[in-house]
Amino acid sequence: MASETGSAQGGDTQTAIMEATYRALCEHGYANLTVDKINAEFAKSKSLLYYHYDDKDEILLNLLEYILDQFSVEDTVDPSDDPDIQLRTLIEEFLPWTLDGEDQEFQVAVFELRSQALSDDGYREQFTRGDDLLSETVAGILEAGIEEGVFREVDVDRAAEHVLSALNGAMLRRLTAEDESAVRTTRKSLEEYIDSYLTPATD
Amino acid sequence: MASETGSAQGGDTQTAIMEATYRALCEHGYANLTVDKINAEFAKSKSLLYYHYDDKDEILLNLLEYILDQFSVEDTVDPSDDPDIQLRTLIEEFLPWTLDGEDQEFQVAVFELRSQALSDDGYREQFTRGDDLLSETVAGILEAGIEEGVFREVDVDRAAEHVLSALNGAMLRRLTAEDESAVRTTRKSLEEYIDSYLTPATD
Repeated sequence: MASETGSAQGGDTQTAIMEATYRALCEHGYANLTVDKINAEFAKSKSLLYYHYDDKDEILLNLLEYILDQFSVEDTVDPSDDPDIQLRTLIEEFLPWTLDGEDQEFQVAVFELRSQALSDDGYREQFTRGDDLLSETVAGILEAGIEEGVFREVDVDRAAEHVLSALNGAMLRRLTAEDESAVRTTRKSLEEYIDSYLTPATD
Repeated sequence: MASETGSAQGGDTQTAIMEATYRALCEHGYANLTVDKINAEFAKSKSLLYYHYDDKDEILLNLLEYILDQFSVEDTVDPSDDPDIQLRTLIEEFLPWTLDGEDQEFQVAVFELRSQALSDDGYREQFTRGDDLLSETVAGILEAGIEEGVFREVDVDRAAEHVLSALNGAMLRRLTAEDESAVRTTRKSLEEYIDSYLTPATD
């Protein structure tokens, strides 16, 4: 869908639509979001075109697809860094010690969309793709680390899924329960997992 | 709220209401659930009293409170088992290799309610309580294991939060993405975490 929209309307318009959708979603939340509110955000951005959507889920799925298309490992970690540093940076990116207002709004919006995947195959497809992308990213860092002797020769897929599940669980808990310390503790425990499980014994 | 309902109507009636709510939630899902549908389920159970609720969230919060009140470690693990076995049993309970229809329905319903906690303090309070309960359960098993020399002297709270985040993340991923192998892999990685991180080195 993203590519259809893109080819029909040009990249700039698609970007403007996606940015308007993102702002409207963060501002109103999934349940209160309507097509009119997305259109209002889009009009505010002063684009020439007033685009009409029939269905908020269609445009939100488009947004998820767009975000995943844009995802690049290099935006999060520096590939010239040591794989050990890359992995810690990735964990820090997903579990910062504190969440500022905008990051909080975005993470809440993502989990609202993720909860649609409980009953909607379109959302499920996008979150499957997102999980796969992140899991492959972690696995890639682990493989590089094993090659360089920074990490032990662990089962890469298993370790990647472990990190991804712990990250997802800690993010979910941060957003749905009053226990900030649980997030900090999970992040520390993930760093400990790197130190004690992934790092070769030196003695 | 649960205790008020209980004292006013007697335990049997409260149980019947809670069971009706549970069935209606599993059957219709959060978004499509209405007070009428809960009442219909309750009438079906042939209780004498037809109870009226004004707000589905009020009764659903009551249900969460009721479930948490009922929670007992002994229902999940056998306290006479080795702590190592208890921890593995708990992980198995939350991440069974396959989910049958009813367990799937229940887990979906719980995550639908959990997503309400993104914006509703009442739900947030109950899921905070649920996470605390589970985290304390895991910590208790770890403490017993350390005392018996089955586990190393790890930071108990940190390890408990790690297990809980990984469990929550894997459950969320199972329900919202098409990757059953991610769940199996996370469970294996948690077992490996017990073997390699929690278990004292024997050589």
